[in-house]
Amino acid sequence: MDRPVIGFLTDFGSDSAAAICRGVILSIARDAQIVDIDHSVRKFAIGDGAFLLWAALPWLPVGVHLAIVDPGVGTIRRAVGLRVARGDVLVGPDNGLLMPAAERLGGILEARLLENRDLMLERRSSTFHGRDLFAPMAAHLATGVAFERVGPAIAPTELVARQLPAATRAGSSLIAEVVYVDSFGNARLGARMSDLPESGPTRRLFDVALLRAGTDRWLAAMPVATTFGEVEVGAVLLYEDSNGLLAVGINQGDAATTLGIAAGDRVRIEAPRA
Amino acid sequence: MDRPVIGFLTDFGSDSAAAICRGVILSIARDAQIVDIDHSVRKFAIGDGAFLLWAALPWLPVGVHLAIVDPGVGTIRRAVGLRVARGDVLVGPDNGLLMPAAERLGGILEARLLENRDLMLERRSSTFHGRDLFAPMAAHLATGVAFERVGPAIAPTELVARQLPAATRAGSSLIAEVVYVDSFGNARLGARMSDLPESGPTRRLFDVALLRAGTDRWLAAMPVATTFGEVEVGAVLLYEDSNGLLAVGINQGDAATTLGIAAGDRVRIEAPRA
Amino acid sequence: MDRPVIGFLTDFGSDSAAAICRGVILSIARDAQIVDIDHSVRKFAIGDGAFLLWAALPWLPVGVHLAIVDPGVGTIRRAVGLRVARGDVLVGPDNGLLMPAAERLGGILEARLLENRDLMLERRSSTFHGRDLFAPMAAHLATGVAFERVGPAIAPTELVARQLPAATRAGSSLIAEVVYVDSFGNARLGARMSDLPESGPTRRLFDVALLRAGTDRWLAAMPVATTFGEVEVGAVLLYEDSNGLLAVGINQGDAATTLGIAAGDRVRIEAPRA
Repeated sequence: MDRPVIGFLTDFGSDSAAAICRGVILSIARDAQIVDIDHSVRKFAIGDGAFLLWAALPWLPVGVHLAIVDPGVGTIRRAVGLRVARGDVLVGPDNGLLMPAAERLGGILEARLLENRDLMLERRSSTFHGRDLFAPMAAHLATGVAFERVGPAIAPTELVARQLPAATRAGSSLIAEVVYVDSFGNARLGARMSDLPESGPTRRLFDVALLRAGTDRWLAAMPVATTFGEVEVGAVLLYEDSNGLLAVGINQGDAATTLGIAAGDRVRIEAPRA
Repeated sequence: MDRPVIGFLTDFGSDSAAAICRGVILSIARDAQIVDIDHSVRKFAIGDGAFLLWAALPWLPVGVHLAIVDPGVGTIRRAVGLRVARGDVLVGPDNGLLMPAAERLGGILEARLLENRDLMLERRSSTFHGRDLFAPMAAHLATGVAFERVGPAIAPTELVARQLPAATRAGSSLIAEVVYVDSFGNARLGARMSDLPESGPTRRLFDVALLRAGTDRWLAAMPVATTFGEVEVGAVLLYEDSNGLLAVGINQGDAATTLGIAAGDRVRIEAPRA
Repeated sequence: MDRPVIGFLTDFGSDSAAAICRGVILSIARDAQIVDIDHSVRKFAIGDGAFLLWAALPWLPVGVHLAIVDPGVGTIRRAVGLRVARGDVLVGPDNGLLMPAAERLGGILEARLLENRDLMLERRSSTFHGRDLFAPMAAHLATGVAFERVGPAIAPTELVARQLPAATRAGSSLIAEVVYVDSFGNARLGARMSDLPESGPTRRLFDVALLRAGTDRWLAAMPVATTFGEVEVGAVLLYEDSNGLLAVGINQGDAATTLGIAAGDRVRIEAPRA
């Protein structure tokens, strides 16, 4: 039988915290195949974590996936498990982190609170639920414990909601949010290529501006390109990222740093004038 | 039979050095389950490495654990293996790195020098004992080679000693050392919650000061809280960390950077005045 | 049977991109043993990636190894597989990245373009060939797919060439390039210990200068030492690194930062005067 896969994402950074969770998992599910997704998510950045999970989970084998970006650890925020249509179970805090990925894996079939103390470590700290609650829950599920056993069902509508931001149109312009800045500095936008204003038969340049507190700052005139190599080294471009999202990049450069944009920013993309 | 677990911690950073050790291990113990604990330990910081091992190993399955923070590589410092009461063998340089973890795993039953050349790589460099000596020793032990074969026994009292620093009392104040600053910026102290001066029936604020070269710098008045969420976002707190140590944190913030404290610093925690 | 080993190196950094490739690999080759070599290679630095592969692969078990540092993704650069004398297959872009490692593993026996669409993901993006082309190719090979099936053979002489830079002599001086700066700050040189000018029966100091745009900047007088510990803490030294290369280091310090040298720089090492 195949070893059960456990995808694992946190904002724990370079520390032993992720390793401690790995140890707890392997102590319970000795043959688990832990797939580290990322542990350098920006601290407390639920949006970044949600994007990374959404981008990664479709490519992992079906499994139990554990995600922890949890600024509310120890407070009344709930711990949840989500069984999704593809067959996975997602485990983590009820703060929206798991929601875009759950949607992308076909939607939630069943949501449960993680409350069964038999599936947690005996002694629990109030600051490290990753070790004491989430990791053992995920590991027990990976060994085949029935999902019903984790705790009472709740309606998916009671969960803290979160979706990737959608683009909006303002006249002939597109307004989109920077969903995530990747490690190359590309700004992934909450928009699809098909959201772009019409650009006519010949390739035109889109005017892209950064919107902050009502002020617009013009960034650059950007061509739409299929690959980075279609523009000069150091030149900006709009492209479709590997998730099908519109993105702003610089060929062999760091667009976010160069242009001064960050996750959460909004940009306006203006239709090229004839 | 279960795959043998090898916990692995170094200060090798983002480089191929840790991977080279993994390759050596897998070339000898092909089915080893390597659990990376951390490879971004501050360079040469034996204290940080010792803390991280101490924090992590109790949560890993029993196994052979390899730790390398080794400013003295190639000098006369000895290479050692420590068999501990829980059943693990710890492998690394004799510079104190392994000692707090060995104590926490029940204490050393048997200590041996790693001197058997049959269990090392044939050609040895003088700057990369991780690859040439430590990794193959750990891997051979993981395949079931008897511990006696690694080399001659030495008395545990002959090992370079190291323990987590203990707190001291000065009148009604507690003096504690910052043992480790975690990736969130929380300062873990060499003290227990029970070391705190009495604070009376109502929750009081402790005055915390940084002691450096005889000068005191007042840091903040800090409440004791069970979880970060009990104080405002951005507020300081004293809390019991997941190891049972007293710690200084900021809710959703970086206490060490904000307060200007680092590993090795000493803080004074004063009993609240009635 | 042993689980197939897949070494894996990229410049993807701390992001979910490497994890997505791991997911794709495990979806095809469920029992693959992925050995992460390094994912924090400097962005687009083919030379750094080539050095790290060259340093690491000899120590990994024979397997299929996947390396992606690919500034030309989506352009006409070719995707290649190289079968080498040791028995491994190296998979990656045809930009020189794989060449020094292939040479070190005994040389290329057979080179093929990766063109068989049956061994790629169905839908391919133009910016993430790691996920869509390289990872599935490597995974299929790891499951035992015959190398002939990946695509047409090409002559190794048609591949983009790359070798580690060799040292040159200028009179009694040695001119060597900094091939790589490791995470400790040691500068690994494209030279062997045996390339050093004669230093006579007693240990002498070599004068080392940095050559930039025709200007020489004297760096330090450096002794040759076997281990870091032979010089004072903070002192510079020339030593033979664990690959047999000449290197510049500082005992418990960061030579590259302290001396202001970087990968690609050239240094001149002058024979000590009698």
